[in-house]
Amino acid sequence: MLIGKVVGSVVATQKDEKLEGRKLLVVQVHNQQNKPLDQYVVAVDSVQAGPGDMILYATGSSARQTTVTEGRPCDAVVMAVVDSWDLGGANVYEKWS
Amino acid sequence: MLIGKVVGSVVATQKDEKLEGRKLLVVQVHNQQNKPLDQYVVAVDSVQAGPGDMILYATGSSARQTTVTEGRPCDAVVMAVVDSWDLGGANVYEKWS
Amino acid sequence: MLIGKVVGSVVATQKDEKLEGRKLLVVQVHNQQNKPLDQYVVAVDSVQAGPGDMILYATGSSARQTTVTEGRPCDAVVMAVVDSWDLGGANVYEKWS
Amino acid sequence: MLIGKVVGSVVATQKDEKLEGRKLLVVQVHNQQNKPLDQYVVAVDSVQAGPGDMILYATGSSARQTTVTEGRPCDAVVMAVVDSWDLGGANVYEKWS
Amino acid sequence: MLIGKVVGSVVATQKDEKLEGRKLLVVQVHNQQNKPLDQYVVAVDSVQAGPGDMILYATGSSARQTTVTEGRPCDAVVMAVVDSWDLGGANVYEKWS
Repeated sequence: MLIGKVVGSVVATQKDEKLEGRKLLVVQVHNQQNKPLDQYVVAVDSVQAGPGDMILYATGSSARQTTVTEGRPCDAVVMAVVDSWDLGGANVYEKWS
Repeated sequence: MLIGKVVGSVVATQKDEKLEGRKLLVVQVHNQQNKPLDQYVVAVDSVQAGPGDMILYATGSSARQTTVTEGRPCDAVVMAVVDSWDLGGANVYEKWS
Repeated sequence: MLIGKVVGSVVATQKDEKLEGRKLLVVQVHNQQNKPLDQYVVAVDSVQAGPGDMILYATGSSARQTTVTEGRPCDAVVMAVVDSWDLGGANVYEKWS
Repeated sequence: MLIGKVVGSVVATQKDEKLEGRKLLVVQVHNQQNKPLDQYVVAVDSVQAGPGDMILYATGSSARQTTVTEGRPCDAVVMAVVDSWDLGGANVYEKWS
Repeated sequence: MLIGKVVGSVVATQKDEKLEGRKLLVVQVHNQQNKPLDQYVVAVDSVQAGPGDMILYATGSSARQTTVTEGRPCDAVVMAVVDSWDLGGANVYEKWS
């Protein structure tokens, strides 16, 4: 998994029927120091993530292991909203600070 | 998934029989600000995407989760035509503008 | 899938028994303008591709969806010989020109 | 697999229910000379790895082949703690030195 | 698959039980001209490859299609020892020369 920030969403009405009702989030990938990287992904939301949330996303076949993505043409899923993380014992990000 | 633009198509008569009748699109990958990246992919069309359409494509085993790609040697599928997306609340792309 | 050119082949007698009789092609990856990239792959041939042919190859589990690669430790397969492709309506490559 | 160092951990309470109780480690990827690379991954722990441990992690569907990750939306798993490795006969890393 | 050279091995006693007895090789990735690239992988050996051998390795779920890796948390496998390869009709590498 990689850490990312929810920065937007995609609207697509003409899509594979198995994606009906799925929310498509634009995720900016961040590094472990919480710096935005020059990388993004569009991921299906499985945890009611909102704009600005720091999240974890999983890719590949692992992205289909949630109830909202199982058996669907989806290669990235937001599967956790991050509360906090640390590096070397020092807090890097704290959602509620 | 990543965002891309349909910029061409590939003709291949000598191919695995399971790919018969599948349309092979050349997709230019774009970033979240809608800037073309130095990256492309050839993807099977599953949503009747046309030239110039902004689309989403999925890769890997997830590319085989549509009715037109199931069980076939295809590692990328166009599974949605994008209507619009936003970043930080600001519209980036609008198909019908 | 990506576009590539068959530039060579690999001989390996000491190999997993499930790869017996499979032809291993060295493929130079090309971009959509038909320029060789600094990237290659060794792929199993499933379509009788020959030296110099422009081809499409698929990777990952999708590379095991042909009759010659099914269930085998092979992560890349040549699954089509390209006749032609276009970009923005202009022909980029024509096999028989 | 790649070699990495456990440098932190992620806390996430709002997550896919199949990830309950799984420990999420921040792993700094190292190269074969044991130099940290500009690359990281968040991986589920399956071997009780601790802070500072050098480890191996596996990605993709292979990350779901442990008892703690099977069937879960997890694309990276720490599946070994490294004792030592060598390059060209010379020891590069020794845990107990 | 990519071409690589066996340059070392990893010892790990604290590991997923399904990896017991598997040999973990450090592989330096080479390009098609046999030049070492700034890339490596740790792969399970399935063909009794030895130090210095030029090999092919497969990644992802394809790495689990050998008898020694089936069902195991392993995302890279050495599945062939290379005897030789050519580019454009010219020999690049010959094991027995």
